[in-house]
Amino acid sequence: MDRMKEKILNEGVVLPGGVLHVGSFLNQLIDTAFMAEIGKEVDRLFKDDKPTKLLTIEASGIGIAVAAGMTMGLPVLFVKKGPASNISGDVYTAKIHSFTHGVDNLATVSKKYLNPEDRILIIDDFLAHGCAFQGLIDITKDAGAYLVGCCAAIEKGFQHGGDKLREKGYRVESLVIIDEMTESGIVFR
Amino acid sequence: MDRMKEKILNEGVVLPGGVLHVGSFLNQLIDTAFMAEIGKEVDRLFKDDKPTKLLTIEASGIGIAVAAGMTMGLPVLFVKKGPASNISGDVYTAKIHSFTHGVDNLATVSKKYLNPEDRILIIDDFLAHGCAFQGLIDITKDAGAYLVGCCAAIEKGFQHGGDKLREKGYRVESLVIIDEMTESGIVFR
Repeated sequence: MDRMKEKILNEGVVLPGGVLHVGSFLNQLIDTAFMAEIGKEVDRLFKDDKPTKLLTIEASGIGIAVAAGMTMGLPVLFVKKGPASNISGDVYTAKIHSFTHGVDNLATVSKKYLNPEDRILIIDDFLAHGCAFQGLIDITKDAGAYLVGCCAAIEKGFQHGGDKLREKGYRVESLVIIDEMTESGIVFR
Repeated sequence: MDRMKEKILNEGVVLPGGVLHVGSFLNQLIDTAFMAEIGKEVDRLFKDDKPTKLLTIEASGIGIAVAAGMTMGLPVLFVKKGPASNISGDVYTAKIHSFTHGVDNLATVSKKYLNPEDRILIIDDFLAHGCAFQGLIDITKDAGAYLVGCCAAIEKGFQHGGDKLREKGYRVESLVIIDEMTESGIVFR
């Protein structure tokens, strides 16, 4: 997605440790007009597979998922990162390691919002090591739902999570894939 | 907002301790079509005051804020609930007590995304004791920005946070206000 490349090159900030800050448009300050463009692109990529629900994880996945859901006319389900007092009854869980924060989170979602008739498209802002996507895939399978695929706004290809998921046979579409990233420049796949 | 009342009466679940679960449409499974209706209502209420940016707090505020922002053509800025490794440089902070989770969170947002020219509309899914709104008001003032007002999807009037903010002179518009809530029924203001 050329506009995503432009935004990253113009506004992204590369920090040591493979960190890319895109807070000015994607995950702090959310550029809603650009989000609508993202939603159209996600729709173009996946509409033929007829997803019925978008699945994401709090917090920064919610923005892109709601934007895509509004564009695609689909509901959005978001998984909490820990046991939450406002989730009651039976739940699906998956342990997800966060390399960013150096902790394991127990992703939790109520069973009543996922069912075997669902065709799930998993969506998140970043795909790096792939832990969050794998956890959301596990939850989708536990629910007996059909997995349409995985979509990330930005894939950090040099952290190989996307390639591992593709090797397992999942459809993974990222709007851009970054293969190299240093303070002096970014190389897209 | 009549449709919000209908959704609460049809799908909401009242639990002991003044807890209302609306996970089926607002803050777990997000009904994006209904979110678009919410966005139009927020626009109707506040457009004459020409907000330039919506301000919310993670996580469940992001859905309604992005939906409203897409409808209103406005960017959305969300505040993190704790110090975050993906926020760098100077930040505004505010201590926000969560009655739901029984903890204090240090709300944090980068200074570069808020400035004195901004006209801020604060938006969140729930307004209960008002701690989150007060924290976001404090951050808005610290930035020297103009506060257009506060908007909640659901105000729990019996917890009086909204009334306290109104007494301080802030414009607070909630799409519905619940004055009484028991397992046998809900009374709207």
